[in-house]
Amino acid sequence: MPNQKVVAGIDLGGTKTLIGLVDSTGKILITKQFPTNIHDHPKDHIEKCIKILGDCIQKISINEDSLLGIGVNVPGLADPKNGVLIHAPYSGWKNVQVKNYLQERWSEIPIRIANDVNSCALGELVFGKGKEFNQFLWVTISTGIGGGIIIDRKVYEGEHFIAGEIGHLVVEWENGNLCGCGNCGCLEAHASGTAIAKMAEMEKISPATAKNVAELAYNGNKIALDIYRQAGEYIGRAFSYAANVLNPGAIIIGGGVSLSFDLLEPHIRKTFRSAVIDESNKNIPILRTALGYEAGLIGAASLIYANE
Amino acid sequence: MPNQKVVAGIDLGGTKTLIGLVDSTGKILITKQFPTNIHDHPKDHIEKCIKILGDCIQKISINEDSLLGIGVNVPGLADPKNGVLIHAPYSGWKNVQVKNYLQERWSEIPIRIANDVNSCALGELVFGKGKEFNQFLWVTISTGIGGGIIIDRKVYEGEHFIAGEIGHLVVEWENGNLCGCGNCGCLEAHASGTAIAKMAEMEKISPATAKNVAELAYNGNKIALDIYRQAGEYIGRAFSYAANVLNPGAIIIGGGVSLSFDLLEPHIRKTFRSAVIDESNKNIPILRTALGYEAGLIGAASLIYANE
Repeated sequence: MPNQKVVAGIDLGGTKTLIGLVDSTGKILITKQFPTNIHDHPKDHIEKCIKILGDCIQKISINEDSLLGIGVNVPGLADPKNGVLIHAPYSGWKNVQVKNYLQERWSEIPIRIANDVNSCALGELVFGKGKEFNQFLWVTISTGIGGGIIIDRKVYEGEHFIAGEIGHLVVEWENGNLCGCGNCGCLEAHASGTAIAKMAEMEKISPATAKNVAELAYNGNKIALDIYRQAGEYIGRAFSYAANVLNPGAIIIGGGVSLSFDLLEPHIRKTFRSAVIDESNKNIPILRTALGYEAGLIGAASLIYANE
Repeated sequence: MPNQKVVAGIDLGGTKTLIGLVDSTGKILITKQFPTNIHDHPKDHIEKCIKILGDCIQKISINEDSLLGIGVNVPGLADPKNGVLIHAPYSGWKNVQVKNYLQERWSEIPIRIANDVNSCALGELVFGKGKEFNQFLWVTISTGIGGGIIIDRKVYEGEHFIAGEIGHLVVEWENGNLCGCGNCGCLEAHASGTAIAKMAEMEKISPATAKNVAELAYNGNKIALDIYRQAGEYIGRAFSYAANVLNPGAIIIGGGVSLSFDLLEPHIRKTFRSAVIDESNKNIPILRTALGYEAGLIGAASLIYANE
């Protein structure tokens, strides 16, 4: 494929890194996954990424000229302007010059980095259901819960790059669960995959995982259904806050827990409708992404395609 | 003042209309106030505005050429693109062609309309404390509670022109007060001037007004202090939602209840800090406007100055 233009995506996660080449239609041409070793020096990890990306390019026999750019998702606070990973809470990496390191190898093409959730939001805008909306809210519901905001078809990052913290909206003011952030009652502490697993554990469901609870719920288990009802209601509370503030065109969700969207959806919608003003907000589409497992990689590539 | 450039502001409120001329520094040169008669046909009311604005122009002896434009605040849902007041809940006026009516008299100059709260936000951006911030949240706490969002130094209106509905964030999920919007537990039903007056009535405080409760609180009355504590805590909850979603540079408040800001502020801040993520959010400045009673008129004028 000597003349095909491609973008490289690097989805640098807390436990694994996924590298791939994505064409302009959002099709993934090749991927390679390997563990993120948080004990590595971050520069060494980026060196590994460079090597593996080089291998991918060789493998599908494209010219280096065909590489339009490189998009990188980072698992934490990013400074997109300078291409720096400011802080990754899980690995403890700080002030990693991601863009500079990559530019030592590829100096002539654009290299852009973003927080992984913002990147997913952008991927949804460029290649997913977000195409239809000028503004929407992206929410990843996984082990944690994060949000990304698209306004006027661009990622809105906020004054200190931390807009869209949907997972930390307080949905339970009295005796709320303690959240990893130190506050109590955050959505993440009541409706994430981790929170669902904790509820399962308290109900002596084994294995106590969000996936198993979902399977039990699909088979009609009342306790499991009730766990998803609770999670759905809390998600509905948080979505009502985001909608009353932002009045987005849609809310689009992804992440592992979103695979059980049909268990959550009626409870999300009911609570949501009871807590937003105006019919136009009450009827905002709440959708599940169609991009699937590789949404992160597509998001990384969209950092380049969105600016083409 | 034959060569001075001025902008006309029309602050069309539910009960009164304020018309004035504002210079490019935000100084008000002349104002004239008269009742808004909601039983009038809206076109007749606009005709009255046209006449009174003409009188103002004559009175300060400026040329009609000096009039740069006209900004109009409307008390309800506005369509700024077409210059239409879509719906004013209090008066019941619908689809009023504000811009067209004014353009019959002034056809050569820009005429812009906006919802009164968005207009206050813009006034704060152009002439107030908002100058320092690229994005901030404006909140009017008065008989009701409304919010306006500035992003990238522009008013953000949302997909259906209803972004910033801070007054309708649910701050009390169990047995919340019934709100005028039909939902329960909205901030407006727990912390507006009207809500404070209702709490006063229940405590047999007379006269049961927000202003009187504030006076009692300043004199150390415990019940009155407790009413303001409650209101402040609820405002803190709502502000935490807006901050976690938007990560604004500041939150700036105005409206009658904001005159008692020092009674509210410690309670707002304490609750707010307990419910936002990240130190940068916890330390967001929460400020009171310095624009005072005529903020609405200055806001109307800023609809023109912001686009100069």
